[in-house]
Order: sequence, then structure tokens, then C-alpha cells
Amino acid sequence: MSEYTLHCFAESGNAYKAALMLELTGQDWQPVFVDFFNGQTRDPMWRDEVNEQGEVPVLMHGGTCLTQSALILDYLSAQTGQFGPQSEEERREIWRWMLFDNHKFTSYYAALRFLLCLKKTGETEVTTFLRERAAAAYRIVDAHLAGTPFMVGARVTIADLSLAGYVFMPEDTGMNVQQYTHIEAWKARLQALPGWQHPYDLMPRVAP
Amino acid sequence: MSEYTLHCFAESGNAYKAALMLELTGQDWQPVFVDFFNGQTRDPMWRDEVNEQGEVPVLMHGGTCLTQSALILDYLSAQTGQFGPQSEEERREIWRWMLFDNHKFTSYYAALRFLLCLKKTGETEVTTFLRERAAAAYRIVDAHLAGTPFMVGARVTIADLSLAGYVFMPEDTGMNVQQYTHIEAWKARLQALPGWQHPYDLMPRVAP
Repeated sequence: MSEYTLHCFAESGNAYKAALMLELTGQDWQPVFVDFFNGQTRDPMWRDEVNEQGEVPVLMHGGTCLTQSALILDYLSAQTGQFGPQSEEERREIWRWMLFDNHKFTSYYAALRFLLCLKKTGETEVTTFLRERAAAAYRIVDAHLAGTPFMVGARVTIADLSLAGYVFMPEDTGMNVQQYTHIEAWKARLQALPGWQHPYDLMPRVAP
Repeated sequence: MSEYTLHCFAESGNAYKAALMLELTGQDWQPVFVDFFNGQTRDPMWRDEVNEQGEVPVLMHGGTCLTQSALILDYLSAQTGQFGPQSEEERREIWRWMLFDNHKFTSYYAALRFLLCLKKTGETEVTTFLRERAAAAYRIVDAHLAGTPFMVGARVTIADLSLAGYVFMPEDTGMNVQQYTHIEAWKARLQALPGWQHPYDLMPRVAP
């Protein structure tokens, strides 16, 4: 039995945020596959017993059950003493970007990828709308990264791991992400971290 | 000069979260009107000088400038000693719901209202999509409120103020919100709080 158990599936970038944190900090952890594509997170029993919000990731640690990727990152930074804030000002900067990520950067991109690449709706008014919103969020993060190697200064923090949720996903969302050169350079810096792994190598893709 | 200055406009439910917190806790504060509908938040100078994320609310307090409504609520609960967590477990519960609010509950509803009621696009594939997503988030919050008077137990916390951002907005989004009876009862409890005010009475609607 590992110290940490993460309910997740490989296609979930929100789960990847937690999995990457566990891996980069060298924790003893194991994934538990959630069969999202067959409706497990919509099952009333799963909602009662695992997460009423109907989402992955869910992290189990001792008697503590945590949901919401940003809160899991915050918890793990306190537990491990790594990638967390070193001052109150840094704490606020980290949360400011994790919130922007949840509200816009991850949110629009993940919804676009889900519809276009996993649900395979084809191009619709909805995918066009989501792509425009995602691009606006990408422009803001790209402009920010023009002036700093990582989201909050010179070292990796949980803000980076939050924003990194979906940026390594291989599916073509029609976003032309190469134009965001500062984001591309930041991605390369993250990939160079000791222990970095791709989401599809870190979590299960199909039911065991 | 008031102690707190809030960059806002009345139609922004995200700004309302902060304005309502300032009002309910009896702070000395003043609004600064942001002309969102004429593009002020997209102005490169405004982004350089006020908020690179291009959003309201922005709270100024002494030398501190804060953005992101959830972070502003967290800051104000610490400053005022009101509506914050009383334990580490409560802190996590509050953040869990504030994150769900930013990612889904406020996010989809606010985008739906913006397109349908303010930009007046009429019903499109996009508004239908957003309404379905908003309804899924409403069902989760309604189910949670079936078992508790406020989001985190028996007293109001900043989690309630976060989720309350758009629920008092008068525009018809086609959501049939009356069906969410536990949310309706919770709204009535919030409206009964001493000092409660409607967003359109609390913040400026047109440029002075």
C-alpha cells in the first residue's frame, strides 16, 4: 500500500498536475484508474463515496481525502516542503495563477480538447468559441512568461505544475501552440526537470 | 481616501464577490468603475498598470494589489477576521468549493449570461453548451446544499460569497433556476444577512 493514492486517468490533465507533483517530489504513490469515459464519475455511488463534485483527481493520504487539483498541489507542497511559496507574497502569486488556470487557461483548453479530440464532435460553433477563449488565456500566460523563466520567479512552483496540466497532451486542437514561444520555452524547461514524465506514461489509460 | 479600493463594475459577479465581502464585514471601501464594455480591460496600458490577467475585480489595499476573486476573499477574511476558516479542514473545504466555483459554477453561468443577456447573441450552439455545463454545476451545488445551510457548515464563509457571485443577477439566462430549491433557500439565507445588497446597488453601472 503506497502512502498516496491518486484516483485518475491518463487523459486528464487535471489529474496530471497531481501525478507530476507526486513524481517530481519523489513520493511513494499509486494511481487508481477511474473509468471516466464509461461514466464512472457520473455514477451516484462514486459521487457519494469518492467525490460529490464528480471530478478527478482525488488524492487519498492517510485519512484525508482531497479534491481539486490546485488544493491538492497546495497540500502536497506543504507535505513535501517542495515547490511551495517562500513568502506570503509568493503564496498570493501562486494562487493568483492557479486560479487563472482553473478559470481560464486549463478550463477552455481542456473543454476544447475533450470535444474535438476525445468526443470527436468535429469543428462546431462551440469548439470555435472555446479555441478563441483558450487563445486569449494563452496570450496572457505567454506575455507573462516573456519576463520570467517560471510563473512565479526563477524556480518551479506549484503554479507551473497547475498550468502544465494540458500543455503536453499530444492531440491536435487546432490551436497552433507553437506561436506561443515563451510557453514553448517554459515547457522545455519543465521537461528538463529530473523525474519529468509525460501524462500518458504516468497514469493508466485503460481499465486494468 | 477609503482604506480599500475595488476596481469593478456592477454587471461583474466576480467583482460582486469582493464588494459583498467588503460590505458585509463593514469595511471602509470605494469602487472604481472599470469600463469593461468599452474594452478597458483589454487596453494594453490597463493590463500593464492594473492587471495583466485582464480581469476585474482588482483590490488595492495600502501597497498591496490583489486580483482573482477567491484570493481577494481569502485575503479579506484574514484581514477582517470574518467568514474565514476556523480549522485546517475548513480551510480545505472552503478552497475546494471556491475552486469548483471558479472552474465551473460561476464560470459557465457567467459566460452564458454574458453572451445571451449582455452581448445578446441569441440562442446558439454555444449558449446551449454553456447552459448544459452550468446546469450540471448547479445540480452538484444543489445536492450539496440539501445537507447543509451554507457551503461549509452552519455559518457563512467566503465559499458562499464566491458561489453567490452571479446568483442574484436579474437577467433571464433560460436556466429555470427555481428548480434548484436548495440553492433558492440558500440565496434567501444570504439575502437575510445584515448589510446584504444587490450587485446593481453596490457597484457603479455606468462611467461617472
